[in-house]
Formats: sequence, C-alpha cells, structure tokens
Amino acid sequence: MDRIVIAELFRNAEAYADQEVTVAGWVRSIRDMKNFGFVTLNDGSCFKDLQVVMDRESLPEYDVIAAQGVSAALIVTGTVVLTPDAKQPFELKAANIQVEGESREDYPLQKKRHTNEFLRTIQHLRPRTNLFRAVFRVRSVAAYALHEFFQERGFVYVNTPIITASDAEGAGEMFRVTTIDPANPPLDDKGNVDYSQDFFGKATNLTVSGQLQAESFAMAFGDVYTFGPTFRAEDSNTARHAAEFWMVEPEIAFADLDDDMNLAEDMLKHVINTVLEKCPDEMNMFNSFVDKGLIERLQHVANSDFIRVTYTEAVDILLDAAAKGHKFDYPVSWGIDLQTEHERYLTEEHFKKPTFVTDYPVEIKAFYMRLNDDGKTVAAMDCLVPGIGEIVGGSQREERLDVLENRIRELDMDPEQYKFYCDLRRYGSCRHAGFGLGFERMVMYLTGVSNIRDVLPHPRTVGNAEF
Amino acid sequence: MDRIVIAELFRNAEAYADQEVTVAGWVRSIRDMKNFGFVTLNDGSCFKDLQVVMDRESLPEYDVIAAQGVSAALIVTGTVVLTPDAKQPFELKAANIQVEGESREDYPLQKKRHTNEFLRTIQHLRPRTNLFRAVFRVRSVAAYALHEFFQERGFVYVNTPIITASDAEGAGEMFRVTTIDPANPPLDDKGNVDYSQDFFGKATNLTVSGQLQAESFAMAFGDVYTFGPTFRAEDSNTARHAAEFWMVEPEIAFADLDDDMNLAEDMLKHVINTVLEKCPDEMNMFNSFVDKGLIERLQHVANSDFIRVTYTEAVDILLDAAAKGHKFDYPVSWGIDLQTEHERYLTEEHFKKPTFVTDYPVEIKAFYMRLNDDGKTVAAMDCLVPGIGEIVGGSQREERLDVLENRIRELDMDPEQYKFYCDLRRYGSCRHAGFGLGFERMVMYLTGVSNIRDVLPHPRTVGNAEF
Repeated sequence: MDRIVIAELFRNAEAYADQEVTVAGWVRSIRDMKNFGFVTLNDGSCFKDLQVVMDRESLPEYDVIAAQGVSAALIVTGTVVLTPDAKQPFELKAANIQVEGESREDYPLQKKRHTNEFLRTIQHLRPRTNLFRAVFRVRSVAAYALHEFFQERGFVYVNTPIITASDAEGAGEMFRVTTIDPANPPLDDKGNVDYSQDFFGKATNLTVSGQLQAESFAMAFGDVYTFGPTFRAEDSNTARHAAEFWMVEPEIAFADLDDDMNLAEDMLKHVINTVLEKCPDEMNMFNSFVDKGLIERLQHVANSDFIRVTYTEAVDILLDAAAKGHKFDYPVSWGIDLQTEHERYLTEEHFKKPTFVTDYPVEIKAFYMRLNDDGKTVAAMDCLVPGIGEIVGGSQREERLDVLENRIRELDMDPEQYKFYCDLRRYGSCRHAGFGLGFERMVMYLTGVSNIRDVLPHPRTVGNAEF
Repeated sequence: MDRIVIAELFRNAEAYADQEVTVAGWVRSIRDMKNFGFVTLNDGSCFKDLQVVMDRESLPEYDVIAAQGVSAALIVTGTVVLTPDAKQPFELKAANIQVEGESREDYPLQKKRHTNEFLRTIQHLRPRTNLFRAVFRVRSVAAYALHEFFQERGFVYVNTPIITASDAEGAGEMFRVTTIDPANPPLDDKGNVDYSQDFFGKATNLTVSGQLQAESFAMAFGDVYTFGPTFRAEDSNTARHAAEFWMVEPEIAFADLDDDMNLAEDMLKHVINTVLEKCPDEMNMFNSFVDKGLIERLQHVANSDFIRVTYTEAVDILLDAAAKGHKFDYPVSWGIDLQTEHERYLTEEHFKKPTFVTDYPVEIKAFYMRLNDDGKTVAAMDCLVPGIGEIVGGSQREERLDVLENRIRELDMDPEQYKFYCDLRRYGSCRHAGFGLGFERMVMYLTGVSNIRDVLPHPRTVGNAEF
C-alpha cells in the first residue's frame, strides 16, 4: 500500500496541494449531510485529525462509508485541497474509500467523556482517546529525549540486570523471581526452602535499582546511565506509586554533588524543552483540559535556575513557616525525613520553583552516600518539583574504602554481598556521583496527569496486573 | 574540577595544541625511564588512551606517580603537544599530576591476557578491559541507533509490562513473580496455592514478549516499538541463550509481510552503518582480535539486498544439498522446524547473505500469525544472518476475527485471556505486522563475540545470577 501518514500532510500540506494521496486510519467521527459528508480520520502519526470530504455524487461507496462506526479502519485516496479560510488548513477530497476493518456499535469509546477510572478497565483501547494518545506520545518523546541527552554527552547506556541476587539499598520490599513450585518446594535439612534448587541456584529478586552495577561501569567509562524497569513490592495504593516503573540512573566519575545537580538540572530542562518543541498539540491539550497553566509553568522551569538549599536550611524554613501558623500534619525538627507536605511547601509555596535539598542527616539516607566533614550529614540531594514532590534523588558516593566499610559494618550489612562494590574503592577509586529519575513522575510532571496509573501503558499496582 | 574528556582531545587535538588542559582517568600502564616517563591514561570517554609524558626534573611528584599501579585514578594537568611523527597524534606534557585513588598489586587485571571465562567472574572489573570496553560501547551505540531509527520514522516507544498475568505465546517457560512465602504459602479449600493472596491478587510471571500489548498500541498510533527486557526460564546452557535478554519489537499498522521485511532490513542496515561510523576504534579491535573479516562482512551486508525465500523453497534447497552429500544431523522434510544447522547452511553456505525465510507451516508457528490462502502456511518470516542464525522473527498478524478465534479454539487456549486481543479485531481491525529482534544477538553479530554472556553486562543463565 503506497500510503503517506497524516503527520506528513500536516508538515508539508502545501507540497501536496492538489495532489492525489492515499492515507489509512481510524474513524473519529462521521457527519452525513445527505449529499456530502465529513469523516475525521486519525492514523496515530500525529495528534491532529484529517478531515476527509466525501461527495455522494462522485463516491459510489458513499452510503457504506457514511454508515461506518467510530474506530472503523478506512483507506482513503483523494486530493489534498488547501482551505486557508477554514479551521483546518486543508482537507482531503475523497475519490475512493475502502473499508479495511469495520467497527461495532458496542465499541466502548463512543463520543462521550469517560472517567480515567473507566478507561483503566480498557487499557487495550484507551490509547485511542485524546488523553492517552497525548500521554503516551509525550512519554515516548520524553524517553528518547533522555537517551539523546546522555548519548550526545558521551554517556554509555548500560542495561543493568532486572533479576538480581542482592538488594541495592537493603531497604525496598522486593518481588521474588522463582521457578520453584510453592505448592511443593524443595526443602533443606532444616526444613527451609532450598533455593539452591531454584533456577539460578539461589534466591533471586526483581531489581529495585541498577545503581551499584552502574557504578562499576562508571569506573570504566566515566559517564554511564541506565534506563529500565525497576520494582517495589510495597503495599501502598497511592496515585504516585506503582509496583513496576521505569527509572533513569546516570552515574558520573570524577564528579561531586554540584556536578550531579548540574547534570540533573540540565537533563530536566532538556526533556521539558524537547517535549514542548516536539509535542505542541499534545501539550496544548493538556494545558486546556488537564492542567491549566502547565505550559507556562514548564517554560518558567526551563528558563530559571533551580534553587539549592541544604536540609538544615530547609528545616529552618519549615520551622519558620510553622511558627507563623502554617499547619503541617507531621511536626518538623532537624533529623526527620521530610514528608511530602514539607517537600511541597518548599517547592510550591516557599520557592515556587524546582528545589534541590542537599546534605541530609546520615541516619535517614543510604549507606553509599558520602559522609560530609561534619560527620552528621551526607552529600545527598533530592530535587523537588511543584505538583509532584521528589522527582530526582541522588548523591555523591562514598569513595573512601575505610569510611564505606565502617558504614557497612555499622548497618550490619553482609560485607560479602558488597565485596564487588568495595573493590571499586580498592582499585583506582575516584569521587563520583549519580542520581535516579523516576520516569513516570517525569511524565506526570510534563503532562499534568495526576495518577501514575494513567502514564503507564499497563500499570501494575497492589491487586492489579491486567492485560 | 574543570576537566575535559580525552575523547574531546582526540576530536579536536589541533584546537588544543600548546594549551593547558586537565584530564582525569585511570592508568593503563606506566613506563619509568628514570629521567622521564610515560603514563597511558584512559577515562572511558573513548577507546583510545592518552599518552602523558612526565619529566622528572619539572615534576616534583615524579616518583610517586611512577610507583602507581595499573588502574590508579589520576588527575593530570599539562600541555597538549602535537606529535605528527609519532604513533599517537599528540601527547600531554604533564605539569602536575594528582593521585585521586591508588590501585593495588592484587588488581586482577594486570597486563596479561585473561580468558573470557575468568573475566566473567569479575563482572564489576571486566568493563575496564579492551574487549569489554569495546563490547559495551558498541552495545550502547547500537541501542541508541535503534531508538533513533524508530523515532525518526515517527514510531511511538511503548514500555510494555514486565510483570504479566498472561503468556504471550502459550509457549515459553516463565519465571513466577511473587511475594508469597514458599515455605508457608496460603492454600485454598482444595489445598492448592491461593494466588488470590499474592501481591497482584493472581499468579504473575515475567514477560516473554510485549507483542500482544504492542499491537493494541499499534491500533492507536500506527507504528510503535518496544525495547526492554524479556525472560525465558529455559534450562538450556548454550552460548546463544540467556534467561534475561533485551528485545526490540516493532509493530506496524496497515502493513503486510513485505513491509515488515523492508522495515527489518532497513533497521539492521541502519544499526550496522551507525556502529561502523561511530565506533571505528572498537570495530577495528574486533576485526583484528575477535573476528577477522568482520568489518568487510558487515559492510557487505549493509550494501546488499537481503535474500527472500519461502520456507518451501528453503526446504527444497536443503533437500538438494542433502542429496548432493551435505550431512545434516536432523533430516530435512517439509513440515519440520528448521534447526540451527539448516538456518546456517542457508545463510552461510548457500546464499552467503542475510536471508529472510517466509511462509512457514502453520503447525510450527504461533497462533497469531496470519493464515495464508493455501490454508497450510502462515505469513511468518525469520531473518537468518551468517554466524548467528535467526536474529529477527516476525509475521503479519491474523487480523480476521473469525480466523483468529478458530485458531484459539483449535489450540485449546483460554479465550477469556485473549478477549482484549480479539477486541482489536472487533473495532477497526487492519492488516498489520511486526517482529522481534534479539538485541544481544544483534550485538554478537556486530562485534563477532560468540558467547551471549560476553555481551550482557551481568548475564543471567541457568545456575548464574552474579553481581
């Protein structure tokens, strides 16, 4: 079939003026005005629909086409006619229309508004709605923008493993990966499950982070990044948590916390600018129907310097706000882990900008973060953005073998499991840093969509693994 | 630290001539000639090493540096001196060298050759060797080339789910994903494991393919692709199989098997050309030390049309070869699944080119492949390449609801599980096609590396999940 995509017509309408072309797509609506009719057709190549005009007199199949339902697949050959005075810049005057595949009256996406909750029950059809066509194109463009950002800076993309025998942070609840039959598991002498008989000869889990493995690659390539799925078996049913989500984790050698923040800030701005440039129709839709003011807010972020404030300064700001009467559900004091309400106060009400909070108390952060000279804080940073809260979390890594080994002992972690990680400090250690970007939170931030279930093609949350 | 990467020096040596720059990297070797010495330094930004020259007289730290071991991390400030008559185009005359991190005598990668088997036991250090620095950069460049190929053609990148409640082909052996304690599983009335009490409220597995979900997105966006990890719990310990590997799966609407093959051929050529262009040093290394003739073979492939031959024709060729005395371990007859020896004979000995074999017997292919008019073959295609065998497998999909439903019944599959898939044929079905590219096989093909364990950062195979 020698067809062109509708996006190509919108890019170069004038070049196709008065020419015959063939397009193929799905019906969005049909208006039958008796002697002539209009079909709006979308082929997924762009957000915009093509207006097809059909004339009863010159189109023998007029009645067959006029009777098609929403989402029928059509192949249309016709002439491009520029319509400078109309709403759309051109239309296609049909010479021939073939039905490639009919639709049916029980098609669930008839012309009325559906709730996002309902649309989650038809995940195989919801990409055909305006909202989800926009969300998933922005997701795709943002993903590529991230690859582009890192690749053009010479970073090496590393596919860290999904199945792992270790727990990156000794923290997250993990999914077990197994071929053992739980109805009849092999047992050892003591009656425990004998994982030496499992597929990998040991107990294995789904990864919660590729960071530690990425660090070994950073010690060879300098600058690396991962971009892949990560997992948390947390029993939390919120609008911001999913059991399966994608994460970007760059890791940079010969770099400190400032370099790390510079990288995160540049990255976020690059993604915002790329999406604004490449997805104007989608972004206008979000701006009109999902989150008014979205575009202006993103442009503001892309054009301003992010705030950088220490945890200690942030706590003082929050204490000050509380003293002035701001009500927090969780009381503020130095040493607490900042709650979402605190993060949002800082970024949304106090600074009204993306905000890096740095140098957190050592007790509330992971073992691999570099101990500051004060002995009580670590060189960590979280990037908080309005409407989302934490979008990036990172740190300078502890590159001093003795300090790292102390910390592993203090926390009663298994030194054998971290031998490879300590080796990186034995053989040519260097200051280095990295961060993790929750990709779905980025897409939520870019689109204004407020539930993580609506930016994942097939969300996995506690109790839900449909499609 | 205001440093530049060594790749930048190699790109623009003349611009830096006689200028002072700072670089940071790891020692590959040190030669101490008493009054002067040479340090070869690599920072991972490119395959090439930088030659640093140090002069005892002008460098107070000369002895400290000369005593450093392989892989020590150094920060060097010095002047770029062009050396048009030497092997390397320039060198760095050191004014100051700081030790960022020492190495040790027990560093396992001293200057001698190691077997790939040994290097697999130090997966955290092997990226520092020439072989693996080359493999993993090519892997990264090839991954980005794939994204670039599809994105520039307007394809939407879809992250299909990793955790799934269905089995895409009713075939592969799958890993179970669970939070149930196998030592003490919840049981139902009949004494079976009660998966309604598992994390997702049902039994879930790691995906073997994102194709079916990708098809629902193709029916909205026209052209889509996935690129993510997939899993097989197969107990096969070969050089070409891993339990965790990455796959690219495009899916295209309003397209038939020819369009599908055109896409696969263009994609393979794009990746080959990109890697040859962007990784000349790495490719020369492979060509010299891993697989002599590699570059010539890849160039040949990039510049020639792939062979297209039906399964029936292929069987005739194999029967003919057997009749002429070629020994096959598995006898050939119409209806058999082609074995690796058959595939390799076709692509390596008979055609000496990448070869598409099409239109396989319906009995040996998956339920979703489109039935041909002969009623006994399906519109499938495998792309076979010399040295690897099958690298791409695809098909035109069955778009006719009645034919598809018949097939699901015939194979005694659960219609409820495939209702969403059949819906795509109910509401605006259209001819469409797609394929899967095993990404690791592509990297093996590009590099000449013959074991899949050596193109995966952390290979997962039966009995092995290290690091």
